[in-house]
Amino acid sequence: MILNEAIDEIVDNIKGVSSEIDSERIEEMLDMLINANNVFIIGLGRSGLVARAFAMRLMHLGISVYVVGETITPAIYADDCLLAISGSGETSFIISTAKISKKRGAKIIAVTSYEDSTLGGLSDLIMPIKGRTKIDTEKDYIKRQINGRHQPLSPLGTLFEVSTFIFLEGVIAELMHKMGKTEEDLKARHTVLE
Amino acid sequence: MILNEAIDEIVDNIKGVSSEIDSERIEEMLDMLINANNVFIIGLGRSGLVARAFAMRLMHLGISVYVVGETITPAIYADDCLLAISGSGETSFIISTAKISKKRGAKIIAVTSYEDSTLGGLSDLIMPIKGRTKIDTEKDYIKRQINGRHQPLSPLGTLFEVSTFIFLEGVIAELMHKMGKTEEDLKARHTVLE
Amino acid sequence: MILNEAIDEIVDNIKGVSSEIDSERIEEMLDMLINANNVFIIGLGRSGLVARAFAMRLMHLGISVYVVGETITPAIYADDCLLAISGSGETSFIISTAKISKKRGAKIIAVTSYEDSTLGGLSDLIMPIKGRTKIDTEKDYIKRQINGRHQPLSPLGTLFEVSTFIFLEGVIAELMHKMGKTEEDLKARHTVLE
Amino acid sequence: MILNEAIDEIVDNIKGVSSEIDSERIEEMLDMLINANNVFIIGLGRSGLVARAFAMRLMHLGISVYVVGETITPAIYADDCLLAISGSGETSFIISTAKISKKRGAKIIAVTSYEDSTLGGLSDLIMPIKGRTKIDTEKDYIKRQINGRHQPLSPLGTLFEVSTFIFLEGVIAELMHKMGKTEEDLKARHTVLE
Repeated sequence: MILNEAIDEIVDNIKGVSSEIDSERIEEMLDMLINANNVFIIGLGRSGLVARAFAMRLMHLGISVYVVGETITPAIYADDCLLAISGSGETSFIISTAKISKKRGAKIIAVTSYEDSTLGGLSDLIMPIKGRTKIDTEKDYIKRQINGRHQPLSPLGTLFEVSTFIFLEGVIAELMHKMGKTEEDLKARHTVLE
Repeated sequence: MILNEAIDEIVDNIKGVSSEIDSERIEEMLDMLINANNVFIIGLGRSGLVARAFAMRLMHLGISVYVVGETITPAIYADDCLLAISGSGETSFIISTAKISKKRGAKIIAVTSYEDSTLGGLSDLIMPIKGRTKIDTEKDYIKRQINGRHQPLSPLGTLFEVSTFIFLEGVIAELMHKMGKTEEDLKARHTVLE
Repeated sequence: MILNEAIDEIVDNIKGVSSEIDSERIEEMLDMLINANNVFIIGLGRSGLVARAFAMRLMHLGISVYVVGETITPAIYADDCLLAISGSGETSFIISTAKISKKRGAKIIAVTSYEDSTLGGLSDLIMPIKGRTKIDTEKDYIKRQINGRHQPLSPLGTLFEVSTFIFLEGVIAELMHKMGKTEEDLKARHTVLE
Repeated sequence: MILNEAIDEIVDNIKGVSSEIDSERIEEMLDMLINANNVFIIGLGRSGLVARAFAMRLMHLGISVYVVGETITPAIYADDCLLAISGSGETSFIISTAKISKKRGAKIIAVTSYEDSTLGGLSDLIMPIKGRTKIDTEKDYIKRQINGRHQPLSPLGTLFEVSTFIFLEGVIAELMHKMGKTEEDLKARHTVLE
């Protein structure tokens, strides 16, 4: 079925991401997440859902984390870290958030398909996740949509989001190891009120 | 790195899901989604994020879809369909939503690791996604958390959510094909205001 | 108690808003909401919560309405209407959304304390709601916060949001009357799944 | 206009709430909010929007607060406090959340029109806010909607939500005073990333 082909394509992309992981950058990312006073996570659209899935796990690990746009998100400061997820690295709302954060002294981690994007240029650390293979002439999320040019809806269109979701799960596994957390340690923070 | 091992484990689970896909059930699922007047999607926690990612795609396809709990979600009726995502199939809020929907005559699709769960028993169609491999003695999300027993935070705990995310992407690819939609047809509905 | 004084202050502001309501503008607003193919509502922070409360009511009235930023919000078109809530009329994300909407031909209603704001200038209809009495030197939400200048946290700071909430409730009452809706007619659309 | 009448009706209800405020209960409420390790806020539908508006203000005041259902909400413990907003005091999801919280030893504050409701019975402190004047035969939110009986959509239907919104703004004013916070002190926590 087309469904199986789509899954194969997604799996291939993930394997490619996995094979190209740079362990030094991962170590740096872990340090930034662990050492930040507060971690802020941002993404829009489906990347925003991936962002929140990662934030939930960081919270379980006892890291103080906020999702940009949720009710209780406070101001960002110089000892904080912003992790921004944007396939194109050109989403305007994310760029403006990154600029504000940088100006205030916070560290920035970019998760993007384009190291040389505007977001990449603003960041202290780039985690490249391939998947957005064709560069749009217009990379800004809003402007692209106005003009009717958006990412493919076929599985190809979701390679970045899915691969990022899985990559960040792997980061959680690394974090647990590095922080010496067992599952027993972590359970206590999982919400009970849902 | 642990990160690569975690990704391998996730990939293996997805491949297992892919190899066991029942094409007749898929056809039935597509028909239910296409023929429903409104499709309602529900999930809690990280499954809720996966639910929303799928809802966004259905909206792009022109299917009338609502996420339970968002601002403009209307009442459910007999010609509607509820798609409920719950690894354990025992999340109490989802069970009560499914019961209400069933009583009102709506069709129910369950995406769960457990066909013989309470949610499974309420559903017209079950899409089994393995991943939640160890049955907890207490499967209800709230009660489990109260008692400090929850899913592992290691990648194992996320196998269901990630596999469901990817499976539902495959469903979108099938839907596009069945509905004869090209990407050009679909672009127009993507939000421009974000 | 201070609490009673705060409530008195809020009540005074609401009465002021009520006494200055321009019935012609209200008629025009009702027509725009009723005649739009889709109504889009936007607000940030606490104004965003007021926006969603209004959207929920419009949905109950059977008006096709979407909240900018929620999962299933589609593209905006020339036969649609954007209702934007911004006390200062200078919130940058709202300005950029209004510009996009205007470019695509949609009608814009501004609910703001400042008729001569940027948002006001972009709009087809302005509903002035006083409450933001002191003009900040920096009216943009993001930039203002960066620089540590924001609205007072005392009740004065909330006069705009509370008054807008109540004003929009009054608009719903007018809409019900104009659309000839009885409560019996409307009940059916209220969510049952929460 | 009907709009002005609706506003008058809302104002009358608020004045009634203000005149009946019990200063001892307010003091107790302030103490519970200040002394809690974490404050959790819950509400559904439009009461949920009011809940979040209050949570945002508590965050500005430096109180550690979480909204039930948002991404990073952790587990509740005995030194925490749950503030639950429910007009009827019978919303089933809120009741079950209150029961869990009580079992775990957390303090509960109910904001409701019905002191003798199920929620009232579970609570350590009740803040009565009139507005829901007619007791439905079925007070549960979900079940009521299934059966097509819900609160009036006219302004009367919103008296509880609007009055609670304003009442809680007054509580913030009291809290600022009691905590000796000036606006200067508080500014720093307002989000800059929106």
